[in-house]
Amino acid sequence: MKALVYHGPGKRSWEEKPKPAIKDSKDVIIRITKTTICGTDLHIMKGDVPEVVEGLTLGHEGIGFIEEVGASVFNFKVGDNVLISCITSCGICDACKKGMYSHCETGGWILGHLIDGTQAEYVRIPHADTSLYHIPKGVDEEAVVMLSDILPTGFECGVLNGQIKPGDTVAIVGAGPIGLATLLTAQFYSPAEIIMVDLDENRLKVAKTFGATKLVSKNAVEEIMKLTDGKGVDVAIEAVGIAATFDICQSIIAAGGHIANVGVHGKSVELHLEKLWSRNITITTRLVDTVTTPMLLKTVLSGKLQPKNLITHRFALNDIMKAYDTFGNAAKENAIKIILSN
Amino acid sequence: MKALVYHGPGKRSWEEKPKPAIKDSKDVIIRITKTTICGTDLHIMKGDVPEVVEGLTLGHEGIGFIEEVGASVFNFKVGDNVLISCITSCGICDACKKGMYSHCETGGWILGHLIDGTQAEYVRIPHADTSLYHIPKGVDEEAVVMLSDILPTGFECGVLNGQIKPGDTVAIVGAGPIGLATLLTAQFYSPAEIIMVDLDENRLKVAKTFGATKLVSKNAVEEIMKLTDGKGVDVAIEAVGIAATFDICQSIIAAGGHIANVGVHGKSVELHLEKLWSRNITITTRLVDTVTTPMLLKTVLSGKLQPKNLITHRFALNDIMKAYDTFGNAAKENAIKIILSN
Amino acid sequence: MKALVYHGPGKRSWEEKPKPAIKDSKDVIIRITKTTICGTDLHIMKGDVPEVVEGLTLGHEGIGFIEEVGASVFNFKVGDNVLISCITSCGICDACKKGMYSHCETGGWILGHLIDGTQAEYVRIPHADTSLYHIPKGVDEEAVVMLSDILPTGFECGVLNGQIKPGDTVAIVGAGPIGLATLLTAQFYSPAEIIMVDLDENRLKVAKTFGATKLVSKNAVEEIMKLTDGKGVDVAIEAVGIAATFDICQSIIAAGGHIANVGVHGKSVELHLEKLWSRNITITTRLVDTVTTPMLLKTVLSGKLQPKNLITHRFALNDIMKAYDTFGNAAKENAIKIILSN
Amino acid sequence: MKALVYHGPGKRSWEEKPKPAIKDSKDVIIRITKTTICGTDLHIMKGDVPEVVEGLTLGHEGIGFIEEVGASVFNFKVGDNVLISCITSCGICDACKKGMYSHCETGGWILGHLIDGTQAEYVRIPHADTSLYHIPKGVDEEAVVMLSDILPTGFECGVLNGQIKPGDTVAIVGAGPIGLATLLTAQFYSPAEIIMVDLDENRLKVAKTFGATKLVSKNAVEEIMKLTDGKGVDVAIEAVGIAATFDICQSIIAAGGHIANVGVHGKSVELHLEKLWSRNITITTRLVDTVTTPMLLKTVLSGKLQPKNLITHRFALNDIMKAYDTFGNAAKENAIKIILSN
Repeated sequence: MKALVYHGPGKRSWEEKPKPAIKDSKDVIIRITKTTICGTDLHIMKGDVPEVVEGLTLGHEGIGFIEEVGASVFNFKVGDNVLISCITSCGICDACKKGMYSHCETGGWILGHLIDGTQAEYVRIPHADTSLYHIPKGVDEEAVVMLSDILPTGFECGVLNGQIKPGDTVAIVGAGPIGLATLLTAQFYSPAEIIMVDLDENRLKVAKTFGATKLVSKNAVEEIMKLTDGKGVDVAIEAVGIAATFDICQSIIAAGGHIANVGVHGKSVELHLEKLWSRNITITTRLVDTVTTPMLLKTVLSGKLQPKNLITHRFALNDIMKAYDTFGNAAKENAIKIILSN
Repeated sequence: MKALVYHGPGKRSWEEKPKPAIKDSKDVIIRITKTTICGTDLHIMKGDVPEVVEGLTLGHEGIGFIEEVGASVFNFKVGDNVLISCITSCGICDACKKGMYSHCETGGWILGHLIDGTQAEYVRIPHADTSLYHIPKGVDEEAVVMLSDILPTGFECGVLNGQIKPGDTVAIVGAGPIGLATLLTAQFYSPAEIIMVDLDENRLKVAKTFGATKLVSKNAVEEIMKLTDGKGVDVAIEAVGIAATFDICQSIIAAGGHIANVGVHGKSVELHLEKLWSRNITITTRLVDTVTTPMLLKTVLSGKLQPKNLITHRFALNDIMKAYDTFGNAAKENAIKIILSN
Repeated sequence: MKALVYHGPGKRSWEEKPKPAIKDSKDVIIRITKTTICGTDLHIMKGDVPEVVEGLTLGHEGIGFIEEVGASVFNFKVGDNVLISCITSCGICDACKKGMYSHCETGGWILGHLIDGTQAEYVRIPHADTSLYHIPKGVDEEAVVMLSDILPTGFECGVLNGQIKPGDTVAIVGAGPIGLATLLTAQFYSPAEIIMVDLDENRLKVAKTFGATKLVSKNAVEEIMKLTDGKGVDVAIEAVGIAATFDICQSIIAAGGHIANVGVHGKSVELHLEKLWSRNITITTRLVDTVTTPMLLKTVLSGKLQPKNLITHRFALNDIMKAYDTFGNAAKENAIKIILSN
Repeated sequence: MKALVYHGPGKRSWEEKPKPAIKDSKDVIIRITKTTICGTDLHIMKGDVPEVVEGLTLGHEGIGFIEEVGASVFNFKVGDNVLISCITSCGICDACKKGMYSHCETGGWILGHLIDGTQAEYVRIPHADTSLYHIPKGVDEEAVVMLSDILPTGFECGVLNGQIKPGDTVAIVGAGPIGLATLLTAQFYSPAEIIMVDLDENRLKVAKTFGATKLVSKNAVEEIMKLTDGKGVDVAIEAVGIAATFDICQSIIAAGGHIANVGVHGKSVELHLEKLWSRNITITTRLVDTVTTPMLLKTVLSGKLQPKNLITHRFALNDIMKAYDTFGNAAKENAIKIILSN
């Protein structure tokens, strides 16, 4: 079969590889019908994720049909159309029992990270019974691909951890794919204002069509304090992963507010406890657990959530090398999410 | 009347001052019967709290009898025995309506900070109806003084924000008065282990008698990771207010855990988001709101909470200069809380 | 001045009465500009609320301008444009401190119940500082009148107590004014389905335009079980106040679901604990506390909530006798809420 | 092997039966070392649980050693010492993913109910990976048997659903085994008062030694209203399962309070909505989910919970017929829980 293989920083190829086989009785083999590329894949390509070894197939998102099931798989059978969660969960360990699948002792984020991933014609999924979801009939399949990672990430790490309430003033710092996924799901809770912050005016325009009520591209702290009559925001969501954007969040948060970190950080940040110690602030971090996937599927089915709007480009899976080029040039190409179909 | 007056860094005197008078119709005048000295008062004496002006009477804790009431006071009358909250609350502004009295628009921490405080024979209390509590008959008055500040602070900022649950493993970093108050109220929720961390072996001994299950004085991170089989603690409470102790909290927190900051910080700290971003951590800060004072009074009345053990020294109010010397030398004097009686 | 006065069951008149005066220093006198009639007023007229004495002015909703303020009122001044809450709150008693204003020791529902109400040219409001809200400039005043009672009632007793979550299936039993207010505010939380239940097809049509996704007029239990594949609903909201509608709620609730009672009941109901004991059900009751009024004002200002749609008829205050006739004939007149302006 | 077999109402025998065998790859076979008898077993013996068929082995509590494991069991191996949960959970279905194991689509309460139970020398446990718990070394085994059912039932259905908080006044109506288990675990949250209600003075004496602060045997409603100065209790826990005791709970609940039903009801009850509709009350029902078993194990290990006190009688498993007689005569025999050892 064909797979997108990592060969060290900057090197990838769409190449022939052996089709995966069942290794453990809880595995299934899936024939991929749709997958996508994540910002994290670009990080891996830069060499920022050293635990990814050369020769690994990338990708942790996608949907497909089950081709083969291990002897200890009970919830799925050959031919089922399924959504692959970016987080693998055993369902048994302490972390899984607490709903913190991201810290599963034998799972977590392993696809396209520690084991071969979904950017291939076939993929092996461990702990299948607790890591896959049946795709309901009649639901748009492209929308469902967005539930592998980006939507639960924006929702769990940003919206739920930020505890957005009706009437709140929310700022989302970063209007990339994750920031926009956060913007979409933030509206589940009817905040009064959602201020979108990004340096890129194009992305802000997109954010406007996704429901942002205010856009800020320069002097973010000053502008947001002005927009909030000097009070700051109830919820600030960091969706970039650098010190500068975390710092905006610290500077605009109102007393009693929530800072929800979604971004992946490579360095430490300066936390201004000398100002914040008395401000009744909550700061959260989270690797997505994908515990809300069943709920998100319901909202897609009911039309409350329309993640399809995130998709800007479509390629054949065979053209994934070109798709990587496009996504790697997201700003110039106005790319948000790319669907690869097989 | 006599009052403990601040005259700039390092200078204080027990001196004659005019007795306070009603300024606003929501004020009352209280004759102080018992007060105490807070670590914050020592900070003020060092000049660390620049908004305290020379000539101000210090103190934000105490009990006493009402001598005079303003025309808009309805909940209290002359002769009532009352507990003074360190936080003044108007009960009307947005912050007060949310139960965040610490950020009351015309109150918050003002006693012995922005207006004359309780280390005097008389004190004026603004917004009396919403800032005082009736002292139930039969309750120990020394215990009640501990409810002005130290117990709600440990409980709200440490225990409630830390979300301690039955069976949890908790670490409290800092065994000073606030750390011990946190230790006392942490036991409301029956954690399985409370690990107390301090450099001072004497304080740790006291912590043991207060219910700590494990004591750590050296190599805190290493020791705690060993005690928890490498998992870290469910809740880490920072009760000192410096970078080193906050850093211990970051290093020992288990995935999914809570870091509750109680300490007053003068400088920023380094937050290791490059490690924590994926660890599902919650960090909280809080200035005490004293919303739990009625509940804490109930637990004192019922004997579930025995704050009296915090009291190590007793002085006449007239001897407050000496009491400050003793409290300023807390480690040597084995002082935790000092009661001053009039 | 003129007022709508109760003279015993079935008897009311729009008659001359002395203008109210300040009785207590926390009172204000308000000149009413808009008021409305509540279903509860009709209950009073039937004699169902025996504590209402003859000679009382009815009405517990409305807005107006402050004409006079007592000496202990600090948050409002003469000329302020204010929203009157149906619940009076002292802000001091135990219940008020817990946010349970409905059980305020000297307040609660007293307007047009125990003291003269708002269906008059002037009204006296006790505990003014904690029972009134400033009307922001630029907000639609008719919409604001809906915040006196009906919207916080639907939201607090129905939506918040029902714990509606994104993706939920909700049934609202009763499509009268309160049921519709519940329907409007339920959408703050993006449920997947809202099934509206009523015998009156006209009301169901209105519900459809307000956002109901399914309508049920007959064989409610059977129909709803069919619509939910035999699982029942996550949240069932009782918005009528009789045994038959409460019984529908018991019969359609899914395991783990919430039944939120909003209706005013005159008789006991049969609770099927022999079926429900093992079903992990939560049943709630509540008299509106109006703690969410500030939040609801924000959502009206931001356009997230458009309560104006509830208003079907408008009268001059002078024509209130006619307005009562219309509202008393709501089904025939297709009346939901009536605005009376002065 | 030997097993306690149900032969219709009133008829049971300790008789020879084939040793159970693995039927499904997720099964294990356990050699029982300790078990106990539940009040529910007595109900079954009375014929009150019609779905129990003649020939079934009773019992849903116990501990033992694993003798054989199915091919899809990964968390346990032959020789492991394990706690059997009264609730069987597949870990995969919607209910299990929500933590509502009691409503597991292929599990729930099935042991000694729909399939052969634990009152035997051997038992087959389905869905073993998600229905058993490792017994930590050094923990008292008799105490652990109490975690199969009675302690999670009291804790989840009574204490957690009742939302007991520090300082609360709690009433537990019924001082049988479940009421006492509720009493033990209620103390995790440091309520100020726990009023125990029962007609049997002996049981009340036991309750006193377990931590009850007040005892009521007659005129319960009147007495409790007197004890609470007419306010009623914050939390009322129904631990009997009849209309009369549920009625006590309705009559003593304070405004804003919680009624947590634990008892198994055979008939409907009258719910006084005509009084409660405006009282801001929450009523809950629940079949134990045993989601708190890992936490309860920690509290037993740490000594915070000492369930062993519940055990009043000990028999050899071979003498289970006699043990049933004793437990069936609990009042006379002063029996709470009986341990049967093999």
